Amino acid sequence: MGRNLKFLIIGGSDAGISAALRARELDPSTAITVVLADGYPNFSICGLPFFLSGETPDWHQLAHRTEFEGIDLLTWHTAMAIDPTKNTVDVVDRENERKRLSYDRLLIATGAVPLIPEIRGIDLPAVYSLHTMDDSFGVQRRLLEASPRSAIIVGAGYIGVEMADALVHRGLQVTLVGRTRSVLATVDPELGDTVGDELRRHKVDVITNVEITAIESSKCLRVSGTNGFEQSADLVLLATGVKAASQLAVQAGISTGQKGAIQVDQSMRTNIPDIYAAGDCVETWHRVLQQYKYLPLGTTSHKQGRVAGENAVGGNRKFAGCVGTQVVKVFDLAAARTGLREQEAKAAGFKPLTVETVAWDHKVYYPGAQEMRIRVTGDIVSGRLLGAQIAGHWRSEVAKRNDIFATALFHGMSVEDFNDLDLSYTPPLSSPWDPVQLAAQAWCRKASSR
Amino acid sequence: MGRNLKFLIIGGSDAGISAALRARELDPSTAITVVLADGYPNFSICGLPFFLSGETPDWHQLAHRTEFEGIDLLTWHTAMAIDPTKNTVDVVDRENERKRLSYDRLLIATGAVPLIPEIRGIDLPAVYSLHTMDDSFGVQRRLLEASPRSAIIVGAGYIGVEMADALVHRGLQVTLVGRTRSVLATVDPELGDTVGDELRRHKVDVITNVEITAIESSKCLRVSGTNGFEQSADLVLLATGVKAASQLAVQAGISTGQKGAIQVDQSMRTNIPDIYAAGDCVETWHRVLQQYKYLPLGTTSHKQGRVAGENAVGGNRKFAGCVGTQVVKVFDLAAARTGLREQEAKAAGFKPLTVETVAWDHKVYYPGAQEMRIRVTGDIVSGRLLGAQIAGHWRSEVAKRNDIFATALFHGMSVEDFNDLDLSYTPPLSSPWDPVQLAAQAWCRKASSR
Repeated sequence: MGRNLKFLIIGGSDAGISAALRARELDPSTAITVVLADGYPNFSICGLPFFLSGETPDWHQLAHRTEFEGIDLLTWHTAMAIDPTKNTVDVVDRENERKRLSYDRLLIATGAVPLIPEIRGIDLPAVYSLHTMDDSFGVQRRLLEASPRSAIIVGAGYIGVEMADALVHRGLQVTLVGRTRSVLATVDPELGDTVGDELRRHKVDVITNVEITAIESSKCLRVSGTNGFEQSADLVLLATGVKAASQLAVQAGISTGQKGAIQVDQSMRTNIPDIYAAGDCVETWHRVLQQYKYLPLGTTSHKQGRVAGENAVGGNRKFAGCVGTQVVKVFDLAAARTGLREQEAKAAGFKPLTVETVAWDHKVYYPGAQEMRIRVTGDIVSGRLLGAQIAGHWRSEVAKRNDIFATALFHGMSVEDFNDLDLSYTPPLSSPWDPVQLAAQAWCRKASSR
Repeated sequence: MGRNLKFLIIGGSDAGISAALRARELDPSTAITVVLADGYPNFSICGLPFFLSGETPDWHQLAHRTEFEGIDLLTWHTAMAIDPTKNTVDVVDRENERKRLSYDRLLIATGAVPLIPEIRGIDLPAVYSLHTMDDSFGVQRRLLEASPRSAIIVGAGYIGVEMADALVHRGLQVTLVGRTRSVLATVDPELGDTVGDELRRHKVDVITNVEITAIESSKCLRVSGTNGFEQSADLVLLATGVKAASQLAVQAGISTGQKGAIQVDQSMRTNIPDIYAAGDCVETWHRVLQQYKYLPLGTTSHKQGRVAGENAVGGNRKFAGCVGTQVVKVFDLAAARTGLREQEAKAAGFKPLTVETVAWDHKVYYPGAQEMRIRVTGDIVSGRLLGAQIAGHWRSEVAKRNDIFATALFHGMSVEDFNDLDLSYTPPLSSPWDPVQLAAQAWCRKASSR
């Protein structure tokens, strides 16, 4: 190392900044420039719901970091074109002034953009999506200035359920409308229903199996959809997912794959020499599926960015792959998942069996014990652990129990061997067999009785 | 299977009952008899501090289970002698009546007994140890009938610190006396001091570096020790560790090893055919050290018992080994460890480096964030993860974060690869790099800068 490379990064969120930090750490001789379209480098976009709920009063707190020593930050600059033959990138600033930047290594970390469904009236002023800091400022302004009393959230995924929680916290009457038969379609309907119940317990009007088709404005917004859905609200929030922001890459001749996301190898290299890509704009290697999927997540972006940054300065690191881990907190409930669900496993050619166990988070004789639901999915042919899902009180170590499964999945453990893990126990925090192992044992009993 | 075996188990605590349950599950034709010296099958001895604190008001709640269908329980029977040539065990009941039981397979699960230090006056009436249900009834009776206002606890290990918490909860003035330079010698002094601070914050008088040498009785108990220690109290509790209850096995010609614990292979077989042993009476295979150690723990007893039960009825399961995982809650603090500490690693021939990181349990912009201290020990030659310790708020998922390390250790991961794990994140519960990964990264930085 120490070859005075020019490392140019397009995108200043999780992947871009992680790459910059890693490159700086490994090779101080590299000149690192990060081009970002807004003025919020390395902000925690996952934190927007908590800013809008009022729990995080000052948006400045959302910065993962504010110190970028040794990194040249070009804020409010949008990358317009990459020329891979000349190793240059054209950018424009807010005054529309164009500038040409050159690179030895380029990282495309352009992230994702909201997937806007085809809904009539989607451009009305009180209809918002929530993906950038500026989006959140728009919603915040509306909440402060127009004092809306009701909101309809379109989309019942992670952001949708978090925003339902946030707007209830803010005093609004909230309707949450999802297309699938239960909310949070990334977990099984059984656990999704648990999340739905928790939302209803907090007065959220939860509507499933409805696709919104139109929004009309009168005094307030009139929202209609399939199955006869019609309701009015002062505010509509779209939380209908994202797609890879890969247009810039495509124009430069970079290959894309699933859902238009950029194709990379495990070194985070694209098909064009010296150009890397990472984060929400790329396909992600899935370790359990042993194939690429589009699974945009902040955790993955950090890891991929770190790998790209290391390799850009001459390293030889591989992205080991995700295993499909996610968690969300909704009011008092946490719902987590890792690996494959039954349907995903079937589609991938496994012979999955899913067994649900209800277990106490700690010995019930110690005060405050809470039940959690644990669903284990394994392959009945090989006995291999394929996935797990947990729903329980957010103080029940649901997230990090899920991560024990995630770590086991990373190593391809069987469900039976999972019982060999030496996990910690004290009566206020677990049982001699941790609930996750009780769930594994229940799976083994069911599998052997078939 | 299905060979109508007679499976006799000596001991009705964690290992014995786990073996019985596993054998019953796998082979209903086996006749299973459990001989236990008292009347409390499968009670949670780890729960005694919470019974005595009053948090678990009824001792019956401490039973891990009360249903033993298909298992013949011989309570209040003490095993006196094993005859391995005739495959018999002699037992006596409370009336001193002797009975001879025969077996095809025998499991010795006699557990441990308190390690009583040589202290003058240790037999005085107000001096208690705490290992059995009956021990706890004695202490409980004393607390109710004599209303002691002060207690001295001798021994500052897991039970000692938990009992300090418990007796403070009960309104006593507590002095905790330990031999080592910090409490909880199973974690590094840095974290032990954190535990000590938490105890002092709750008015426990914490004394270290003192060995108790004498207890005298006048109106109350006068306790003296090294370094000029002298103090009086109404009650003295000994929490000075345990040793394997292996006498019965020794008399039958069974080999013992470290600290007099029974030698077993990973199938939980002793050196005598058809005799298995498991739990606090045996040496435990340590997966990181790749050698046997005496490490009596309830979690390990459950696992070993399950393996022994499976093998006793014809199975072929191996105990995969412990990795040295433990956790304790003291007031608002949880302290957990897994793997090797620096000194243990050195003694085992590694070249360890230990790096401490202080990290928030979740994004600090979400309310209620708490700092935790994470110490990672790795081998600087191979980069291999050797151990980890965490001290933090007991609601900070300290225990199950520790178990992510435990799972990584089980698989022999390197500290660097630990960053590849796909762990769950949502702002109220973690950060995009979980604190455990931030700690791993800090270790890598330190290791590479050497």
